[in-house]
Amino acid sequence: MTTPTTPEQSSPEQSPREQSRPALPTLDDVRAARGRIAGLAHRTPLTTAHSVGALVQPPVDLYLKEEQRQKTGSFKARGVLNRVATLDEVRRGRGLVTVSAGNHAAAVSWAAAARGIPATVFMRMGAATNKVAATRAYGATVDLEAKDNTEAFDRAHAAERERGLTFVHPFDDPMVIAGTATVGAEILEDLPEPDLVVVPVGGGGLISGVALAIKETRPATRVVGVEPVGAPTVTQALAAGRPVTLGPPDTIADGLAAPFTGAHNLAAIQRYVDEVVLVTDDEIRHAMRLLLERAKLLAEPAGAAALAALLAGKVSVTAGQRVVVVVSGGNMDVTKLGEMLR
Amino acid sequence: MTTPTTPEQSSPEQSPREQSRPALPTLDDVRAARGRIAGLAHRTPLTTAHSVGALVQPPVDLYLKEEQRQKTGSFKARGVLNRVATLDEVRRGRGLVTVSAGNHAAAVSWAAAARGIPATVFMRMGAATNKVAATRAYGATVDLEAKDNTEAFDRAHAAERERGLTFVHPFDDPMVIAGTATVGAEILEDLPEPDLVVVPVGGGGLISGVALAIKETRPATRVVGVEPVGAPTVTQALAAGRPVTLGPPDTIADGLAAPFTGAHNLAAIQRYVDEVVLVTDDEIRHAMRLLLERAKLLAEPAGAAALAALLAGKVSVTAGQRVVVVVSGGNMDVTKLGEMLR
Repeated sequence: MTTPTTPEQSSPEQSPREQSRPALPTLDDVRAARGRIAGLAHRTPLTTAHSVGALVQPPVDLYLKEEQRQKTGSFKARGVLNRVATLDEVRRGRGLVTVSAGNHAAAVSWAAAARGIPATVFMRMGAATNKVAATRAYGATVDLEAKDNTEAFDRAHAAERERGLTFVHPFDDPMVIAGTATVGAEILEDLPEPDLVVVPVGGGGLISGVALAIKETRPATRVVGVEPVGAPTVTQALAAGRPVTLGPPDTIADGLAAPFTGAHNLAAIQRYVDEVVLVTDDEIRHAMRLLLERAKLLAEPAGAAALAALLAGKVSVTAGQRVVVVVSGGNMDVTKLGEMLR
Repeated sequence: MTTPTTPEQSSPEQSPREQSRPALPTLDDVRAARGRIAGLAHRTPLTTAHSVGALVQPPVDLYLKEEQRQKTGSFKARGVLNRVATLDEVRRGRGLVTVSAGNHAAAVSWAAAARGIPATVFMRMGAATNKVAATRAYGATVDLEAKDNTEAFDRAHAAERERGLTFVHPFDDPMVIAGTATVGAEILEDLPEPDLVVVPVGGGGLISGVALAIKETRPATRVVGVEPVGAPTVTQALAAGRPVTLGPPDTIADGLAAPFTGAHNLAAIQRYVDEVVLVTDDEIRHAMRLLLERAKLLAEPAGAAALAALLAGKVSVTAGQRVVVVVSGGNMDVTKLGEMLR
């Protein structure tokens, strides 16, 4: 088992032990993860989106990896299932604990219920109410006392220590990364030679897995990450050469507002990701609207970020390239769609 | 070629010739239609929707036939393509004319452009602006002078007579019905033994084709139609034993607000459809919201009507039945979603 760490714990000053290169999953781990999640998580469709691809400059052959249709409405179900599958009976009996802006919380709550394991989830005050409700509906106990994500992490780690719970990290864990890497493996199964795969980036859990699966199999495919301008977690970590803790995020993409990336995630991103670009909230809104109007698909802001970057010209492409965008999630308060898209 | 008729023209008093049983397409016609539309129309997915099916009383094994992802955003592309494929060079040169609340208009405009044929579309004043814009964007000339759908039909028929245009009826035409029947053929290909197929009903074009394809292949499958309470076109025609012209519709489902059904459609419905039930606008709103929240899919009101009936208990089911709902279209002004779903 890998102990999840915050950047502070893994910084060279505090814990020299952590300076060693973090162990990343292998393609064998990804294959094992596919076996563990099969029949529980959906194998989501890779669909064509011609009319949206025609709006990219220059036009590309566009594919959507529809993780918004995954169980619990986001890709998070994959990593959590893979993580939970490895726990022994004692740990299952004590239960799970985690922290999340929403989608990871719902995934932990769902996976725990599916396995008959208790779960406690720490969310920050002001977390999206629909995500809080979904997490409670799946069965977990929800704690909303933390004023921000950093404090939520602290409270969750305290529960881990004091109650012997198993912390299921939302991104910084090789087992979670191997689970999210199944997204990349499925993409290559459906489209063996993509030119480019574009992935939203929050804490880096999704892109570290997807990039690993893609690059270890087909190095010629470019993998580009997309962060909000108002939550440049990985951009700053890449610049600093280590995970750094950001101030409060400023973005409509609550799913991409992680306060820091993880050591494992940063290592995978440094090794496998070609580039990370930034998008504005307006660019995200435009992509959400096009997904609804043209593809008839609901993406939450985080889920539309990869397409937003492509449409805004933030990712260089050549005409006719086979481009996959990962639509990572679709959980949002739909009664707010009108004002959000106006 | 079959001349499209309004109910007035086909009533026994005015035209005894029309009393003969309307000729319906055969399964061979449906197979031919599949060949004609292949490569132009999408073969849409039949997807599972477990969490929505679990909300039906009693819970069913629910499948969505996703025609909202069809070319032009609705099933209409199928019938029009099949109809246009049979025109000779002279008729193609003169052009097409039609009347529509929106989705058929867009389909005619798109299919005409794809075949290099001019098209004129008559829509009523107040037609959904996004549908008018889409129809113009595909290339057709749009006439918005008619105060209601009945007048729009009159104006379109006048253009047919005076300018030698080919009228592409939105529903009352064996070639159009054979085209929409491809929806039913695809359902059976993906799920060979459905217990129940539920279909939205406007003028009756979709259900007449789907029911024909289903019942001629697997008579044990129930086929149920769904109309809005505020536009009970087929319900009234079934009661009267002939097409009747309704007063102004009162429903948010503009796609189901046809002023009358067709003679061919009524004949097919009498022969193949087990039951037609009615849903309220609130029931439709609830289904739209669940499709967005649970399946992450945008359906326009008409497209959500079949699911609405199922969720409202208007269609009798037994636990675990394999139920297909046809999501017929997804074209709407997405900026109005918030207020519509509140």
